[in-house]
Amino acid sequence: MFYHDGGKLQFEVKVEKPNPAFANALQQAIGGIQGEIRVCLQYLFQAWGARGPKKYRDMLLETGTEEMGHIEMLATAVALNLEGAPASMQEAASKDPILHAAMGGMNIQHTITTCMAAMPVDASGVPFNCSHVYASGNIAADMLANVTAESTGRMLAVQLYNMTDDPGMKKMLSFLVARDTMHQNQWLAAWEELGGAKNHPIPNTFDQSKEPSAYNYTFFTFNKDASAQGPRGRWSGGTSIDGEGEFKQEPMTPAGKVPDLGKPSPDAAVQKSQLSGSDPNIIDKVLGSV
Amino acid sequence: MFYHDGGKLQFEVKVEKPNPAFANALQQAIGGIQGEIRVCLQYLFQAWGARGPKKYRDMLLETGTEEMGHIEMLATAVALNLEGAPASMQEAASKDPILHAAMGGMNIQHTITTCMAAMPVDASGVPFNCSHVYASGNIAADMLANVTAESTGRMLAVQLYNMTDDPGMKKMLSFLVARDTMHQNQWLAAWEELGGAKNHPIPNTFDQSKEPSAYNYTFFTFNKDASAQGPRGRWSGGTSIDGEGEFKQEPMTPAGKVPDLGKPSPDAAVQKSQLSGSDPNIIDKVLGSV
Amino acid sequence: MFYHDGGKLQFEVKVEKPNPAFANALQQAIGGIQGEIRVCLQYLFQAWGARGPKKYRDMLLETGTEEMGHIEMLATAVALNLEGAPASMQEAASKDPILHAAMGGMNIQHTITTCMAAMPVDASGVPFNCSHVYASGNIAADMLANVTAESTGRMLAVQLYNMTDDPGMKKMLSFLVARDTMHQNQWLAAWEELGGAKNHPIPNTFDQSKEPSAYNYTFFTFNKDASAQGPRGRWSGGTSIDGEGEFKQEPMTPAGKVPDLGKPSPDAAVQKSQLSGSDPNIIDKVLGSV
Amino acid sequence: MFYHDGGKLQFEVKVEKPNPAFANALQQAIGGIQGEIRVCLQYLFQAWGARGPKKYRDMLLETGTEEMGHIEMLATAVALNLEGAPASMQEAASKDPILHAAMGGMNIQHTITTCMAAMPVDASGVPFNCSHVYASGNIAADMLANVTAESTGRMLAVQLYNMTDDPGMKKMLSFLVARDTMHQNQWLAAWEELGGAKNHPIPNTFDQSKEPSAYNYTFFTFNKDASAQGPRGRWSGGTSIDGEGEFKQEPMTPAGKVPDLGKPSPDAAVQKSQLSGSDPNIIDKVLGSV
Amino acid sequence: MFYHDGGKLQFEVKVEKPNPAFANALQQAIGGIQGEIRVCLQYLFQAWGARGPKKYRDMLLETGTEEMGHIEMLATAVALNLEGAPASMQEAASKDPILHAAMGGMNIQHTITTCMAAMPVDASGVPFNCSHVYASGNIAADMLANVTAESTGRMLAVQLYNMTDDPGMKKMLSFLVARDTMHQNQWLAAWEELGGAKNHPIPNTFDQSKEPSAYNYTFFTFNKDASAQGPRGRWSGGTSIDGEGEFKQEPMTPAGKVPDLGKPSPDAAVQKSQLSGSDPNIIDKVLGSV
Amino acid sequence: MFYHDGGKLQFEVKVEKPNPAFANALQQAIGGIQGEIRVCLQYLFQAWGARGPKKYRDMLLETGTEEMGHIEMLATAVALNLEGAPASMQEAASKDPILHAAMGGMNIQHTITTCMAAMPVDASGVPFNCSHVYASGNIAADMLANVTAESTGRMLAVQLYNMTDDPGMKKMLSFLVARDTMHQNQWLAAWEELGGAKNHPIPNTFDQSKEPSAYNYTFFTFNKDASAQGPRGRWSGGTSIDGEGEFKQEPMTPAGKVPDLGKPSPDAAVQKSQLSGSDPNIIDKVLGSV
Repeated sequence: MFYHDGGKLQFEVKVEKPNPAFANALQQAIGGIQGEIRVCLQYLFQAWGARGPKKYRDMLLETGTEEMGHIEMLATAVALNLEGAPASMQEAASKDPILHAAMGGMNIQHTITTCMAAMPVDASGVPFNCSHVYASGNIAADMLANVTAESTGRMLAVQLYNMTDDPGMKKMLSFLVARDTMHQNQWLAAWEELGGAKNHPIPNTFDQSKEPSAYNYTFFTFNKDASAQGPRGRWSGGTSIDGEGEFKQEPMTPAGKVPDLGKPSPDAAVQKSQLSGSDPNIIDKVLGSV
Repeated sequence: MFYHDGGKLQFEVKVEKPNPAFANALQQAIGGIQGEIRVCLQYLFQAWGARGPKKYRDMLLETGTEEMGHIEMLATAVALNLEGAPASMQEAASKDPILHAAMGGMNIQHTITTCMAAMPVDASGVPFNCSHVYASGNIAADMLANVTAESTGRMLAVQLYNMTDDPGMKKMLSFLVARDTMHQNQWLAAWEELGGAKNHPIPNTFDQSKEPSAYNYTFFTFNKDASAQGPRGRWSGGTSIDGEGEFKQEPMTPAGKVPDLGKPSPDAAVQKSQLSGSDPNIIDKVLGSV
Repeated sequence: MFYHDGGKLQFEVKVEKPNPAFANALQQAIGGIQGEIRVCLQYLFQAWGARGPKKYRDMLLETGTEEMGHIEMLATAVALNLEGAPASMQEAASKDPILHAAMGGMNIQHTITTCMAAMPVDASGVPFNCSHVYASGNIAADMLANVTAESTGRMLAVQLYNMTDDPGMKKMLSFLVARDTMHQNQWLAAWEELGGAKNHPIPNTFDQSKEPSAYNYTFFTFNKDASAQGPRGRWSGGTSIDGEGEFKQEPMTPAGKVPDLGKPSPDAAVQKSQLSGSDPNIIDKVLGSV
Repeated sequence: MFYHDGGKLQFEVKVEKPNPAFANALQQAIGGIQGEIRVCLQYLFQAWGARGPKKYRDMLLETGTEEMGHIEMLATAVALNLEGAPASMQEAASKDPILHAAMGGMNIQHTITTCMAAMPVDASGVPFNCSHVYASGNIAADMLANVTAESTGRMLAVQLYNMTDDPGMKKMLSFLVARDTMHQNQWLAAWEELGGAKNHPIPNTFDQSKEPSAYNYTFFTFNKDASAQGPRGRWSGGTSIDGEGEFKQEPMTPAGKVPDLGKPSPDAAVQKSQLSGSDPNIIDKVLGSV
Repeated sequence: MFYHDGGKLQFEVKVEKPNPAFANALQQAIGGIQGEIRVCLQYLFQAWGARGPKKYRDMLLETGTEEMGHIEMLATAVALNLEGAPASMQEAASKDPILHAAMGGMNIQHTITTCMAAMPVDASGVPFNCSHVYASGNIAADMLANVTAESTGRMLAVQLYNMTDDPGMKKMLSFLVARDTMHQNQWLAAWEELGGAKNHPIPNTFDQSKEPSAYNYTFFTFNKDASAQGPRGRWSGGTSIDGEGEFKQEPMTPAGKVPDLGKPSPDAAVQKSQLSGSDPNIIDKVLGSV
Repeated sequence: MFYHDGGKLQFEVKVEKPNPAFANALQQAIGGIQGEIRVCLQYLFQAWGARGPKKYRDMLLETGTEEMGHIEMLATAVALNLEGAPASMQEAASKDPILHAAMGGMNIQHTITTCMAAMPVDASGVPFNCSHVYASGNIAADMLANVTAESTGRMLAVQLYNMTDDPGMKKMLSFLVARDTMHQNQWLAAWEELGGAKNHPIPNTFDQSKEPSAYNYTFFTFNKDASAQGPRGRWSGGTSIDGEGEFKQEPMTPAGKVPDLGKPSPDAAVQKSQLSGSDPNIIDKVLGSV
């Protein structure tokens, strides 16, 4: 169960010079795949489905609750950046070409559908889609998904910081950058506590002896010219990062044949010309095996 | 530019007992967010947009090309699992209740819209959406996104492996599990080569002195009861994982106030009752600042 | 800013007989358009963008916070309903036909992608899309959107209640039904306080004298046979509900002509056969007017 | 079955000064969630699925048919606003900076994918998604959904009206505003005829004695500080709007415990570190109960 | 402007044995990409945006109006197939295993969200997305899009026809198959009237002398082994179908080099390790050229 | 299985004057429904699911492989057009109003989320959705879908060609236009080889004697005024294009009645007022028939 604090913000949000184009850019941090709705729901769904040691569940619940407050801060920042925006582009154009140009980058829906308030969409106006809430049920995989989300989230916050001159916005964004610094460290800390690179390959409950050994530590190259040198690096030789194998590098050659699908069923909505397939025995064989 | 091999598969794909419900489960590995369309396009888009050392671009191109062949293998596996499926559920029910039950888990679209072939959708029939192609332009962030994708991809392959008794399918899936083992190691290897945990926080080009220091290495708790003990772990004390700070743990208190949005514009499509806002001076102040 | 309560649930969630098909049905109450993610984000975005009297903002913040706890309850209920589900359909089928049949209605992704936990998707596996977060900036319109959401939400909860025999699930659902009863009343109360039917038409800041009076209180019929009797009811006569006009009922006849679009531009990617349009003067006239 | 009128428009659509940015804004009224495709399909699907008194079905069919004509009007308006738009932004920029600026707000797809015609998308270019066609099968809920749609639809039309100086566009929009006035009244009229606030809570076929009475007429507050005063209004005391209870206002305290999910299945794709859960007896208990 | 006929259906719709699984399959013909919402909106948007000879616009308007009536028929068929379906799966299971199995293929949302009525979704429950409304503004391209839609539409109707034993459903589907026969012919007739294969390549207003002649009539093969025989057919030799060239067949070799993107901007959110790119001069050159 | 060529491009991609607005327009050719991701996946999925004569499968594999190289070319073109774009709109505005105006048409995500690289989205920023990968399993239907895709693809390439002055971009686009010319011809060639118009109606395996003959070769008109002249053309008389019938033209009259749905189930979440339906016997009859 959750509580609020009467609407008090986690950190101050001030806008000196409202800027509708910047309001639109901020939307990416609300409804973009790098944004706060995503991490909020991602951490909470991971918490609510967590099975195993309770402390990871608790940690996820803490930070998921924090992110809800980040959406709140950003939604407030969008609303404040939209204040005073002209209701009409024509009006703006006639009065002030500079302002008009600035409006070129705004999301027109902020005027015509929200009365100057934030939406759960990205900077292109595409609504957030919850398929981006990654919660796999495997703690280590989830920690990595979270480091990734905080990495692109911090990249976004940095780029927004660089884009604005408004002191209030710079201050708010520096706070969000700082929180992303902590959150990257935090998920990495949990991942290391769980074994770090040594907990790979994920999931570590699968018996690796079932993997064909010619394929699980070899970097294959797919250059048309099999003699071409592939890219060399940590991955092309030495002990594997998980400590379970030796890296090799080889050109790939197909180990499978050209597949031969059976003829279509005479009941399918195909053309007559398809009913004589390449291998007339296949379909009968298949039907026989059912 | 790309080439094929006359349709030869990277690894053999055989199905002894076609199973339409398993065909549906395999769809997740094609068009799910853990699937092969995603990693194929993700690695290629990362390669095509890569700026910086060329070897990472080359490595991404290699593995992106490999993944295209994995989609091919899985699409073949789906088609083979659908062979011999009855065109009609009624027919199946009247003949064989067991088969009918098995069809309960099939995707009816395999019958009525594809004539028994794979689709670029997941196991719920939801089409793959390219917003899941994560390519941030930051090499380290991209490597982490790739480890994450291969972790959930290997989880999925393991779960499909456990779900089937078909020897051909088990063999194909063990190959895919093995490749995911390599790919997890490979992206981790690149991430370590770039500095590993020490290349964090991502992006590492932002001057951390601009971050407010009270916030960037503190794990905040949000329990309603500020005296409650938060979850303890590697993240709650000691040197941070990136080596740039010291972890602390504290209950959070709001550093911001309740925001006061301006009154709505009289031109906006609001109700008259909204025009008397809480602070009548705010909107005038804002309008003055434009 | 938001807080949690150490994970304590708003109301008890117990499952006596785990049922994976019911877990899937419950997903509709999490990620469906009638579900809790929707109302949670809807009330919070309405609050964060609210301009005008502060008490509506405060009320929205209260109930938005409550709904976050409802997602938590339902995610817990899904996880508990999935416990003990066989990892393999084949296994289930071989052991117990009844259980196998019950699994026909489950979401296979609960097994293969979440390790038996809830997802932010509906009962068809379609992820929640935030375009359903309705927040118009007009208080009265938002109150109506909320009554609507709570009406379909209560319908869903009632239907889930009727579908299960599990005493724990029935108890949890009766709580959710009760909360939806309150929330319907609450948004209706705010709507009435703002004027009820008399605050219509929304928005009430538009000068109705600009509306062509032949059209704003007439129910038009579109039967091919203009003499056919249209449906009679409160809307076909008497004072309008908003008190601003008199209802009439009339067959519609077109007040506009067949439109005549200009010829395509010779630079457009059209066919040569399109370049001779119906009225050769139109495009020149249009080009002249720019 | 449906008929047309040879393409004659319901109301006249004239554009004096084509404006590609306004064409884009008009798209919201076609393919936005407040737009005409939505209400057209919503009313028709409600009609086609209506069970119960026939007159509501008939009324829905009338107005659904009308809305099809509104899409036609708006698609025509978009096409006329695009006439004469330069095929190339470069060309525009070199000729006329003002025109170029105006093109900043256009949807580039109007040039490169439709040869200057309307699309079923909103003002951000996001295609209309039929999940917004709300048709619940409950007449009263559907009437409220319709009042809501017409409220946001009228808001949009008013805002478009305020945005343009073109006399033809203003005239067309005043007609659409007038129709939305009627339609708001009409759906409210049907809702009142069905009992108005007294037909709540929806659905009214559920036996309210099954609702726990501590929860169905109480406005709960979730302030971290339980002694804080919650928002007062019509909802905080007195008889409930549906006439079935007495409003109260109270701070919420959790009635449920922290949930304890079972350990993950050893067959699930989890980490070894997850297999030792908090309560080792839970999973056995659950497995036993299946 | 449009009219209805009091709800009379274009063709009779009777269901003798309601079947909820067949109701779900029918959904594909309503909200699938092969379905009636798609063709209805596609033909109407093509009509409303048609520039050039009026008769094509008129033809599109006729058939678009017809398709609206097909949605009506199918929505009715879905509602009738759902009548009498048990409200609860548990109830069904306990009473009748056969019925229970049949319910495995139903869309549970038909029970819990629509009170047994059709939805604008496909047979997987995915809502129709209007991006599938293809309207290019080029008449010939649009005619081909329409033949394609009617081809897959007729395939679907045929497969539904084959799937059911219900005489009423078979009769309704044979009518829809017949209409698709006509509509395929009709769009082909318009395409032939416009020049048939000779109106290609579409658009025919582009001056083909600007096309590099080595590439516009050659079928390239991409086999890794350049000496491999490519697929032979009408496309590998002789006069091209459009009559404008001679078909050839050749193995492709790259005509471009490996691209060299500039280094990332120092202001971008990249890693320090990316700032030393492959060609240090490129970015300066690029910056100079702006 | 697939190979690459070390990153060499199929055709040269040069950009003399980077232009972020043109980079955005090019996105349509990558991630739009007319774009290269679509045709690449469409041809490959058609190949992987092809049943029947092997040569069509082989041809699809060839061209699907080619299209992968087209995505690569366009992604490179986008990255090159973004080089040197200012990281900040404010910076651009202060320095150069022309540049600022040019940035009005850019996708802000190219700056804030990709560090100046291509995305799998269209020119409105909407991600590509794989539901547009049309693969029906019927060869002839698939060939038509492919001609359609190449027609709108060539339209798009032509329009991009006309929009740019950059010699490198014009050269690259003329290559893509040429390939689309070939591909249109190629799919038409296959369609003709399969019988051309005479292979219609698709699918040609359905026995046409089951179609009601009054409906399968008649162009119906739906004008409210049945005496109005419908659009005349090749479709209104003479032998049908498929050679199987005679075209007629007639006004449509309904052959079905107004449907009478049963009353709602008393267990459904409806209103009490709905329980008295129009024909009280229907539901009992239906329930009896299950």
